Amino acid sequence: MKINLVKTSNNLTDLNNLTLKKRLEHKINNKTKPPGSLGRIETLAIQLGLILQTETPQLHAPQMIVCAADHGIVAHGVSAFPSDVTWQMVENFLAGGAAVSVLARQHGIGLTVVDCGVNHDFAPREGLMLRKVAYGTADPLQAPAMSFSQCEQAIENGREVLANLSGNAVLLGEMGIGNTSSASLLLARLTGLDIAVCTGAGTGLDTLGIDKKTEVLRRVLAHNPEANAPFDVLACFGGFEIATLVGVVLQAALENRVIVVDGFIASSAVLVASRIAPLVLQRCVFAHRSGERGHQHMLEALQAQALLDLGLRLGEGSGAAMAWPLLQSACVIMGEMASFEDAGVSRSDDPI
Amino acid sequence: MKINLVKTSNNLTDLNNLTLKKRLEHKINNKTKPPGSLGRIETLAIQLGLILQTETPQLHAPQMIVCAADHGIVAHGVSAFPSDVTWQMVENFLAGGAAVSVLARQHGIGLTVVDCGVNHDFAPREGLMLRKVAYGTADPLQAPAMSFSQCEQAIENGREVLANLSGNAVLLGEMGIGNTSSASLLLARLTGLDIAVCTGAGTGLDTLGIDKKTEVLRRVLAHNPEANAPFDVLACFGGFEIATLVGVVLQAALENRVIVVDGFIASSAVLVASRIAPLVLQRCVFAHRSGERGHQHMLEALQAQALLDLGLRLGEGSGAAMAWPLLQSACVIMGEMASFEDAGVSRSDDPI
Repeated sequence: MKINLVKTSNNLTDLNNLTLKKRLEHKINNKTKPPGSLGRIETLAIQLGLILQTETPQLHAPQMIVCAADHGIVAHGVSAFPSDVTWQMVENFLAGGAAVSVLARQHGIGLTVVDCGVNHDFAPREGLMLRKVAYGTADPLQAPAMSFSQCEQAIENGREVLANLSGNAVLLGEMGIGNTSSASLLLARLTGLDIAVCTGAGTGLDTLGIDKKTEVLRRVLAHNPEANAPFDVLACFGGFEIATLVGVVLQAALENRVIVVDGFIASSAVLVASRIAPLVLQRCVFAHRSGERGHQHMLEALQAQALLDLGLRLGEGSGAAMAWPLLQSACVIMGEMASFEDAGVSRSDDPI
Repeated sequence: MKINLVKTSNNLTDLNNLTLKKRLEHKINNKTKPPGSLGRIETLAIQLGLILQTETPQLHAPQMIVCAADHGIVAHGVSAFPSDVTWQMVENFLAGGAAVSVLARQHGIGLTVVDCGVNHDFAPREGLMLRKVAYGTADPLQAPAMSFSQCEQAIENGREVLANLSGNAVLLGEMGIGNTSSASLLLARLTGLDIAVCTGAGTGLDTLGIDKKTEVLRRVLAHNPEANAPFDVLACFGGFEIATLVGVVLQAALENRVIVVDGFIASSAVLVASRIAPLVLQRCVFAHRSGERGHQHMLEALQAQALLDLGLRLGEGSGAAMAWPLLQSACVIMGEMASFEDAGVSRSDDPI
């Protein structure tokens, strides 16, 4: 598997094609507007053109993949909600009543829920992919959250799930009571930041709860001093849903799909994937800055700027879904808006 | 007219209905998510419920109104683009090639362009309303930009245009070379801020250009020391498109429509309208924080927080159109998302 990961890294194209980039910049600068006046939408349009390798980027059949799993660390009281909420929310996603269900429907985004390691047996049905590696991760104070082979399997599952979905854009969603703990651990270990600045309220801990969670996470880090390489860090601090998302990200990058990253947990999968294959970041659009404490540090570590800043901290992919129309706007601006020449509009440097 | 304006103010309902507000808060707190985890979308959903006076807000037949006019002040070199761009862009809006045309089409928003005072004769056609008060405002260093009767007429036009459009939401757009100057003057005089902090690059002045523009605007303010009441300030510093938008805002508020405010110019119309009838602000959703320098001060004066912050500074209503899907998201969250009871999901305070 490690050989595979290295191969992925080598196989990614560097999208920073200067010829295409110049053509994209020229095209957007000739649209009927003052140069730069569409702000971030202009840089987004150029990025989408580079990912899709065209001057006329168009998005089709967008796919929201919500990866779900349970976490052994929850036994240490790190979450405001019980683990059963993971499977209950999976049922809610499939029944169409969760935030991500409603938002995906609003925007015509396909929704696939993946059981990556939920502590529950689901009846098979449409929209649910059963890729359970285990009934939740191990307690990371006892053992690595995932064995290396489990971690490999979860990544491979993510690759396979993505590869079998249509479309040229994927939105990353997740569900897993306890998974802000995993994301905080990944952030702290991969960046060297203190665990205290990486740890937040998750689903709604109070100050005392956050302090307790931070201390548990500090012990987990101390218990695993040897985990430093991205794959090892992922296995030790876990999250079957995060590992599966790492696979989704690596495969989507290989296929040059647009990757729309949700909040703290989805970003932690991108952080791991980018340490394996840095060029994945060229394909990533960061949907929003989460209200979860560590996310700003995560975005800084990824040198990423998010589109929305609305205090969202739900996860599920809800922020990615809400940012989706902005990507579509970037495409229609690039594809449908008139140039100065087309429209017969004077420029600022035309003689007055 | 001034009597009319006072009447508007008295006729607006205070939407801060505590019973409905509590019901809306209760409803959103019972959705399957940690309380508050949808951030600004939750407060937006509550606001939309209060404006539309229902626990299940639904938006229908949204209308983008793009008000266009020319400005006498342009003779003093305050803009990077020539005045002819105003009518050329009106043609571009109607031909479907401008940013706002493309974005309105993306989101199914009706687009109405109003000639409020463009220095050009347009052939009548669908989507264009001819409500020209004059061929541009007067040079405000010579005379008030608009006479009182012209200003009254423009406001009345805006009321009438809005009243004849269907739907329960209006998006404010504008076009007028020179109109950031008007907006800066309105902001400075109505808030007492120094003109220097109210003045920015507009369509793309450099530092020297901004300095020159600031000095022109300082002279205009000094030339009109007596203008302090909102209507007088509007008439002196002008903008037929801004005055028409003031009428749109006042009428939309009376009809309890949702008012989606674009950037610096649209906000200046809301600033004037809110000084006439403060309760209009309860109906306003501020779409984005513009890259134009004065807009942050404008938002502070209005005690408003914008949804998007993407460095947009195009105007036309482009930012309002881009924020529109977030309003729809707030509605579907309120209307379609399951409650804990519906979905059988455990709460944080359920026994674990």
